[in-house]
Amino acid sequence: MQVLKDELRHKILLESEHLFLQRGYDRTSLQMIADKVNISKSNLYHYFKNKEELFYELTDSAADGLKRMILRFRSMRFDLNMDAQEFRMLLTEEVLSLLLAEKYGLLLIMEQANGTRYENLRPVMIELIASKIVPMLADEENSPMMAQIMARNLVDGTVHILKNRVRPSEVRAGLNQLITYHTQGMHALQ
Amino acid sequence: MQVLKDELRHKILLESEHLFLQRGYDRTSLQMIADKVNISKSNLYHYFKNKEELFYELTDSAADGLKRMILRFRSMRFDLNMDAQEFRMLLTEEVLSLLLAEKYGLLLIMEQANGTRYENLRPVMIELIASKIVPMLADEENSPMMAQIMARNLVDGTVHILKNRVRPSEVRAGLNQLITYHTQGMHALQ
Repeated sequence: MQVLKDELRHKILLESEHLFLQRGYDRTSLQMIADKVNISKSNLYHYFKNKEELFYELTDSAADGLKRMILRFRSMRFDLNMDAQEFRMLLTEEVLSLLLAEKYGLLLIMEQANGTRYENLRPVMIELIASKIVPMLADEENSPMMAQIMARNLVDGTVHILKNRVRPSEVRAGLNQLITYHTQGMHALQ
Repeated sequence: MQVLKDELRHKILLESEHLFLQRGYDRTSLQMIADKVNISKSNLYHYFKNKEELFYELTDSAADGLKRMILRFRSMRFDLNMDAQEFRMLLTEEVLSLLLAEKYGLLLIMEQANGTRYENLRPVMIELIASKIVPMLADEENSPMMAQIMARNLVDGTVHILKNRVRPSEVRAGLNQLITYHTQGMHALQ
C-alpha cells in the first residue's frame, strides 16, 4: 500500500511539474493537476494540502541552491584585471553544477513563479549581476542601463540553454559560449 | 464643436496608450479607458468602435515601419568579412530612425500586443535576426541556439533602451553600445 501511495505521490509531482512548466504557477489549478493524474481533487488533498505546497516541493531545493549562489556571488569582486578566462571558469563551474542538479526547479523559478515566494529571485539575480558589471564599464552615463541589458542576456541566455540542452556536456558547452559572448562583448565597452 | 471632439479623441488615444503600455492589450478594457478619460463607455463608442480599433490606431504606423525593416533586412546578406564597423553603421542607422519615430507604437508591439494581429512581430523579428547570425557562428552544433540567444539580446536590449532613454542622441548612444556588445561578443564565437 505504501508503495502505491509513493507512486501516486510521485505521479502527482511529475504532472504538476509539467503543468507548472507549461502554464505557470498562477494559471495552473489543483483541479487541472487532479485531472491529469486521473484522481479526484479530494484525493489529491491527501497528498498535498494546497497548490503552494506542491510548487515549493518542486522548487525549494533549486531556490536554496540559487540563494547560496547569490550569497557567494554577492561577496565576490570582479575587476578589470580579472581576465576573461578566469571569469569564465569561475562562472561556468559555479553555475553549471547548480544548473545540472536543479534544472526544472530553476526553470520554474525563473519563468513560472509569478504569485509564489520565489517570484523575485529572477529580478534579484539580474540586479546582482548588473551591480557587478557596472563598475567594469567605461561610459558611466550608460553603464547602469548596459549592465542591466547584459545581466538579462546572461540570465535569459542561461534559461534558454537549460530549455534546449539535456546532456551535461552540452549544457556546459552552451554556457561557455554564452559567457564568451558576454565577456568579449563587455570587453569592448570597458 | 469639432475642436472639442478632436481634443477628446486625442485624450482617448493618450489614455489608452498609457493603459496598454502598463497593462497590455488583453488586460485593458474599454471601461478602464472610459473611466480614465472620464466619459461614459457609450460616449467612447462614438470615437472608436472597439478596443482593436484603438490599439491599431496606436500601432499601425509602427507595425508598417517594422514590417518594412523586416523586408529590407530579409534581403540583406551578412558575412564574416563584413567588419564590425560596417555592421554597426548599417544596423544603427536603419533601426534608429524607426525607434525615434515610433517609440510607443514599437513598445506596444514588442511587449503588450498579446491577443492582437501584431503579437507575432517580436518572434518574427527574433527569428529573422537569428537566421542572419547562424551562418556567422563557428560551432555548427550550437549555432542555432546561440543565434537565438543573441537575437533576443538584441531585441530585448533595444526595447530596454527605448524604455530608458528619451533624447535621440541617448537612444543612439545606447544602441551603439548594444551593437558593439553584440558584434564583439559574436566575433569571439566566429
